[in-house]
Amino acid sequence: MALDDIRTPFGEVKGALGGAATYASVAASFFTSVGIVAVVGEDFPREHIRFLRRRGIDTGGVKFAKGKTFRWSGLYEYDMNQAHTLKTELNVFSKFSPEIPEEFRGAEFVLLGNIDPEIQMAALRQAKGAKFSALDTMDFWIAGKRKKLVKAMGEVDAVFINDAEARQLCRTHNLVKAAKGIMRMGPDFVVIKKGEHGALLFSDGDCFVAPAFPLEDVIDPTGAGDSFAGAVMGWLAKTGDTGERNMRKAVMYGSAIASYDAEHFGLNKLKTLTMKDVEDRIRRFRELTKFE
Amino acid sequence: MALDDIRTPFGEVKGALGGAATYASVAASFFTSVGIVAVVGEDFPREHIRFLRRRGIDTGGVKFAKGKTFRWSGLYEYDMNQAHTLKTELNVFSKFSPEIPEEFRGAEFVLLGNIDPEIQMAALRQAKGAKFSALDTMDFWIAGKRKKLVKAMGEVDAVFINDAEARQLCRTHNLVKAAKGIMRMGPDFVVIKKGEHGALLFSDGDCFVAPAFPLEDVIDPTGAGDSFAGAVMGWLAKTGDTGERNMRKAVMYGSAIASYDAEHFGLNKLKTLTMKDVEDRIRRFRELTKFE
Repeated sequence: MALDDIRTPFGEVKGALGGAATYASVAASFFTSVGIVAVVGEDFPREHIRFLRRRGIDTGGVKFAKGKTFRWSGLYEYDMNQAHTLKTELNVFSKFSPEIPEEFRGAEFVLLGNIDPEIQMAALRQAKGAKFSALDTMDFWIAGKRKKLVKAMGEVDAVFINDAEARQLCRTHNLVKAAKGIMRMGPDFVVIKKGEHGALLFSDGDCFVAPAFPLEDVIDPTGAGDSFAGAVMGWLAKTGDTGERNMRKAVMYGSAIASYDAEHFGLNKLKTLTMKDVEDRIRRFRELTKFE
Repeated sequence: MALDDIRTPFGEVKGALGGAATYASVAASFFTSVGIVAVVGEDFPREHIRFLRRRGIDTGGVKFAKGKTFRWSGLYEYDMNQAHTLKTELNVFSKFSPEIPEEFRGAEFVLLGNIDPEIQMAALRQAKGAKFSALDTMDFWIAGKRKKLVKAMGEVDAVFINDAEARQLCRTHNLVKAAKGIMRMGPDFVVIKKGEHGALLFSDGDCFVAPAFPLEDVIDPTGAGDSFAGAVMGWLAKTGDTGERNMRKAVMYGSAIASYDAEHFGLNKLKTLTMKDVEDRIRRFRELTKFE
């Protein structure tokens, strides 16, 4: 969980509620009951905790540690696909060792947000009830902890990764080759997130091409990837079906929620979004991709 | 029409038959009878003309001029989406003024391949029978002949343009905004080609998101955009239906043919491709995009 300073060509926010765990939890909470495990500092506004609780998110795994909350400061320019990190202050995050509360350990669907792969594995080991686990990652860990990351990918059922990171990880520009490379590391599903170009879902011998919603106004894409992953996992948890057909549908819900996320700063859009809005966008997706 | 020297990480060819008119004609010839208007030099191998004729392409509009054929020399590196031009020799192309043969002037479907927009307009003025015309363009004309190009876009029914060029032309990174900007110039359809990310079809109040085929082996993408446009126009000519629904289907045929084009050097793949192969890929597209 983080406090974000974000500047885009359309404005800026300071100290906004952010972080992979936050975005993923809020997205998943459209579909299922969610428990969040994270660390914040003493400066973390209690209103954010109240907001999450109002959404039915169990914040029993949010640890208040001595020090300041993790802060990310980022800038988007003309190309809104590309976040430029201005500053990262790890603060309480630097000593984070996730402790999964006893009451969360039976959770069947576990999403490991982007963080050090060793921490992801430490968390997964505690999640004894996990039937379907997934991880997200970023370039930093691919460059710095490749071996640990590859091992972690072998321990989960699904990997979320963006296109540039997939190319980097597998040292090929071809996304099909990259996806197959990640599949060989062990997961049953690889989801390559391509921002404005949608997503690709790979499984054994199968591929699904998911569209992105053609947005005229992308205001702030922060959290879109995490919202995507959270919504996918939320849909899987709601339906309890991890077959390829249902995974496709999950990816479409991910794409729908992610598209809404990008329409406003931080979590602003998701805060007021309804399931009717989500279903509307799923219907629009059907129209957008239909051909006779 | 051109003779291309192409180098990619997978090999190279020298003096291969190329050029927008060639790729588009060959692609269109899967669907309809085609007449090609172009210029070549005295060095142009007659076997290429025989090849086009064997495909039922009328080469009566190919002018043999004094001098050498237009030559393009290009290189693809790691990122196969991006062609690096090593050398362009205009040769006979520098004095090209298209003359549409009398017997072509009744053609109802006219594709103006990428060339100086003034030449495109000169050709269109001669195509008296045109019921549906389209043009393709490139960054060079956007930078150097913007006003003429915008005017030309107002004269045609459909504009083919790639994503980077659409952003450049409309001075916005947002593709929906760019497409709407081009729509305001006059055409009924705008097709934004996104290479490995597929294509977007815009028409009045409507949008279609077309997938690209997830290729594991992209050997040489030269001509993919021209094949795409040629196949779209070929399908429209075959069916005689320029409604939005049929335009979607045309775009899918464009995407299918373009995907095959990229699987081999130059025209090699299209040379042996059958309609069964094309229909196979259309079927695969349905599976690739299906969600319940």
